[in-house]
Amino acid sequence: MGTQESNEVNKLVDDILADYKRGRDIDKMMAYNMPDQEAVRTITKKLIRMLLPGFYRDKFYKSYSEYGNLIVLIEDVLYNLSKQIGIVLRYQFYSENPDGEVDDEKINAQAYCLALTFCNRIPMIREYVNTDLEATFRGDPAAFNKDEIILSYPGILATTINRLAHELFLLNVPLIPRMMTEYAHSKTGIDIHPGATIGKYFFIDHGTGVVIGSTTEIGEHVKVYQGVTLGALSTAAGQALHGVKRHPTIEDNVTIYSGASILGGETVIGHDSVIGSNAFITKSIQAGTRVTIQNQELVFKDKDGSIIESNDLEQGAWFYVI
Amino acid sequence: MGTQESNEVNKLVDDILADYKRGRDIDKMMAYNMPDQEAVRTITKKLIRMLLPGFYRDKFYKSYSEYGNLIVLIEDVLYNLSKQIGIVLRYQFYSENPDGEVDDEKINAQAYCLALTFCNRIPMIREYVNTDLEATFRGDPAAFNKDEIILSYPGILATTINRLAHELFLLNVPLIPRMMTEYAHSKTGIDIHPGATIGKYFFIDHGTGVVIGSTTEIGEHVKVYQGVTLGALSTAAGQALHGVKRHPTIEDNVTIYSGASILGGETVIGHDSVIGSNAFITKSIQAGTRVTIQNQELVFKDKDGSIIESNDLEQGAWFYVI
Amino acid sequence: MGTQESNEVNKLVDDILADYKRGRDIDKMMAYNMPDQEAVRTITKKLIRMLLPGFYRDKFYKSYSEYGNLIVLIEDVLYNLSKQIGIVLRYQFYSENPDGEVDDEKINAQAYCLALTFCNRIPMIREYVNTDLEATFRGDPAAFNKDEIILSYPGILATTINRLAHELFLLNVPLIPRMMTEYAHSKTGIDIHPGATIGKYFFIDHGTGVVIGSTTEIGEHVKVYQGVTLGALSTAAGQALHGVKRHPTIEDNVTIYSGASILGGETVIGHDSVIGSNAFITKSIQAGTRVTIQNQELVFKDKDGSIIESNDLEQGAWFYVI
Repeated sequence: MGTQESNEVNKLVDDILADYKRGRDIDKMMAYNMPDQEAVRTITKKLIRMLLPGFYRDKFYKSYSEYGNLIVLIEDVLYNLSKQIGIVLRYQFYSENPDGEVDDEKINAQAYCLALTFCNRIPMIREYVNTDLEATFRGDPAAFNKDEIILSYPGILATTINRLAHELFLLNVPLIPRMMTEYAHSKTGIDIHPGATIGKYFFIDHGTGVVIGSTTEIGEHVKVYQGVTLGALSTAAGQALHGVKRHPTIEDNVTIYSGASILGGETVIGHDSVIGSNAFITKSIQAGTRVTIQNQELVFKDKDGSIIESNDLEQGAWFYVI
Repeated sequence: MGTQESNEVNKLVDDILADYKRGRDIDKMMAYNMPDQEAVRTITKKLIRMLLPGFYRDKFYKSYSEYGNLIVLIEDVLYNLSKQIGIVLRYQFYSENPDGEVDDEKINAQAYCLALTFCNRIPMIREYVNTDLEATFRGDPAAFNKDEIILSYPGILATTINRLAHELFLLNVPLIPRMMTEYAHSKTGIDIHPGATIGKYFFIDHGTGVVIGSTTEIGEHVKVYQGVTLGALSTAAGQALHGVKRHPTIEDNVTIYSGASILGGETVIGHDSVIGSNAFITKSIQAGTRVTIQNQELVFKDKDGSIIESNDLEQGAWFYVI
Repeated sequence: MGTQESNEVNKLVDDILADYKRGRDIDKMMAYNMPDQEAVRTITKKLIRMLLPGFYRDKFYKSYSEYGNLIVLIEDVLYNLSKQIGIVLRYQFYSENPDGEVDDEKINAQAYCLALTFCNRIPMIREYVNTDLEATFRGDPAAFNKDEIILSYPGILATTINRLAHELFLLNVPLIPRMMTEYAHSKTGIDIHPGATIGKYFFIDHGTGVVIGSTTEIGEHVKVYQGVTLGALSTAAGQALHGVKRHPTIEDNVTIYSGASILGGETVIGHDSVIGSNAFITKSIQAGTRVTIQNQELVFKDKDGSIIESNDLEQGAWFYVI
C-alpha cells in the first residue's frame, strides 16, 4: 500500500473514530454491556429444541444418549440465559443510575433466579404448544400430518417463540423478549409483540404480514390468516401511550380472514365471530357475528375497454381459507 | 454452584424430562428418524447451485476445475438427498406399520432410485428456470440485467425452489418438499405449496405476502405481484378436504396485480385476463377480461377536518406495476 | 457402489454437464467473475457494525481494545468492498467489451477509489441513521427505548441498509447495491430499491410487505406502515421504461398507513398529508390533505345468516397506528 493510500486510510479511520465520539445514541460504545443478538438467537433455537426435543437434530453436543443430550441442553440454556439476563439487568441498572455502582453478586443471583423461574415454565409452555399443533392440524387441509407442521410451518414457529418471549416479558426482562420475537418475525414475516396475551389452540395460517400489537388479548381456539393486523388507533400522543391498552381483545373461537384489520384498545370481537377478508374494524362486534365487506363492485371489460358487466360481489369471505 | 442451586437444576431437569414422557405428539424422541432441517436446507442450496452453476461461489469443495467441482457437487447432492429420502421412507413405513420391521436394503434402494429419478429431471427444471428468468427480465423495468435477477431477486429464488420441490412432491416423497418451500418462504415471504403446478415463463415481482395453495394450476406467461393470494373456499370440512381441488386455475398470459385474492377450486381465470389490485374473485372469469375494483370512494379533508372533495376513483389497476 | 449404479451416476453427470453447455443465460460459468452473495452479506453486516459500533458484538477480531477493533474493521471493509467492486467493474467491462482486455491495475485503482469514496460517506450516513432512530422512538409507543429499536426493529435495519446501498447506487456500482437491499428484504420483508431517495427522520413500522420503487423520492419526517406500496403505473413498455421516473414523490411530514398504495411517477403527495389505510392513490394530493376510504360497507350477520345490521364505517384510518 503506497504512502498516499495509507494516508487516505488513516484519515478515513480518524474521521470515523471522531464521528463515534459525538455522544449521540448511535455513538454508544458499550457492546459488552448489551445483550448479544447472536447469543439470543442461539438460546431461542435451543429453547425450541427443549420444547420439541424430537424434531431438531442435535447440533450442540456429541453425547450418544438422547436424554443425556437433553440434560446438557437444559443446563446450557439455563447458563447462557442467566448470562444474557445479567447483561440486561446491569444495562437497566446503569440506565437508571448512570453514576451508580452495580452489585455484581446481587445482579447475578437475580439473573439466575429469573432464568430458573422461566425454565420452570417450560412444561406449561409445552402444553400450550401442543394445543397450537392440534389446532393447526385440524385447521389446514393441506397438512400432511402433525410432524410436517412442526418441521415446516411458520405459524407454529412464530407462535412458539412468542409463547417463550411472553413469559420473559411477564418477568419484566428488558430487551431480550423483543429480540426473540423479531427473530421470529425475520424468519416468518409474522410480527407478534411479546406483550400480546394468546390463549390455547392458536392457529396462524401462512402468516406473512400478520401484526399483533403489544396489548392485544386473544382467547382460545382463535384462527388468524396472512396479512391480519390487530392494531391500535391514534398515535398522536406517541410515547405517552406506552403501556396503555390500545390493541383489541379477541374472544374465544373467533376466525379472522386474510388482510382484515381490527383496531383499538376498546374494540372487543365477541366469541364465535368470524371477520371476513380485508374487513376494517374499529368498533366492538357482538358474539356470534359474521362480518364481511358488502359489495366490492367489480368492473369487467374486454380488451377494447368496453364493459362486459359490472357486478356486486358479496365477499363470501367468512368461509374463505387456503 | 451451591447445593441449593444444583438441587434446583436437578429438579428442573427431572421435571422437563418427565414432561417429555407424556406421549403427546410434541413428546416424540425420534430426532434421528426425522429429516434434518439443516440438511434439507443445505441440499436445497446445492441444488440451486446445480441449476445456476455460474452464480454461486463454491463453498463446499477446494478443487480447481469448475467442472470438477460440479461433478463432486452432483454426486454429493445425490448421496445426501438419498439419505434424507431414506429417512422419510422409514418414517412413513413406521407411521403406517408401528409394529413392522423395515427392510433397510429395500428402503435404501428405493431412496436412491427416487433421488436418481429426481436428479435426472434437473435439465428439464433448468429449462423452466431459464424461461422464468426471461419473463422476469422482460417484466421488470428496474432490472439491470438477467445476472442481477439471478443474484438478487426473491421471485426467481422462490419459483426455482418450488420447481425443485414440486418434482419431489410428484414422486410422493413426504415432508421434504414442504420443508424446501418453507425454506423459500422464510427467505422471500413467498409461500408456494409444493403441490402447485406452474407453467413456463412465471414471474413474481417483489413477492412478499404471495400465497399459492396446494392444488393451484397456473399456465404459461403468468405474472403475479406482492400480496396476491391464490386460495381456497370453505374450510369447514378441515382435513376431509385433503387432496380435493380447492384452489383456482389460472390460464396462460394472465396478470394478477398486488393484493388481489382469487379463491376456489372451480374458479378459472381465462387466458389473457388481467386482475386488478385488491380485487377479490370467487367465480370464473372469461378469457380476455380485465377486472378492476370500481369506485373506491376516497374522501379528502383539510386539517380542520372539513371535506375538500370526494371522488370516485376507478382503480386503473390493470396497468399498475412496480 | 455397483457398476450399474456408477454407470447411472456417470450418465447423470454427463447429461447435466452437457446441459450446462447450451449457452443460455443460466449456463454461465463465470462464478469467480461474479460478486459473491456471501461476501456482500458479510460486508453489509460489517458496515452496520461500523454505523452502530456499540450494538453488535465483535465476531471478527480478537483484539481487546474497542477502538483497535474498529480500526481493523474499517480497513477490513475497505479491502473487501474494493475486491467485490473490482469484480463487478471487470464484469461490467466484459459485458460491454466481450472481446476486450481489461487493464487490471486501472480497474483495481478505480475499485479502491470507489470503496474509499463510499467509506468517506459513513459519517454522513450515520447522521441519517441517527435521525431515523429518533423518528422511530417518537413514533412507536411500544418502543422500550432507542437501544431496543437498534437491537431488534426491522424498519431501522432495512432503512439503514438502504442508506448504504443508495450511496453505492449513486456511485454507479452495478449489482452490489441491489444484492444489499435484497439481503434486507430477506431479513425484514421490506423491499426498498437502492435507487429510492429517502430524507431524514424516516420511520417504517412493522414493515412486512412494504415496497418502495427505484425512482421514488421521499422527503423528511415521513412515516410508512406495513404493506404500503410506493409503485409505478403502466408496464406495457417493459425494459423501455428503465430509468424513467415512474414512482411517486412524497413530500415532508407525510404519514402513509398500512396497506395503502401510491402509484405513478407524476403522483406527488403534498407535505403534511396523511394517507389512510388501504387507500389506492394514482393522482397528486395537495399539501395538508387527509385521505381516507369512505364507506367500506360492512354486513353483520348472525349464525343463521340473517342480517343484524349493515353500516357504513368511515375508516378513521388517519389516526391509526400499531
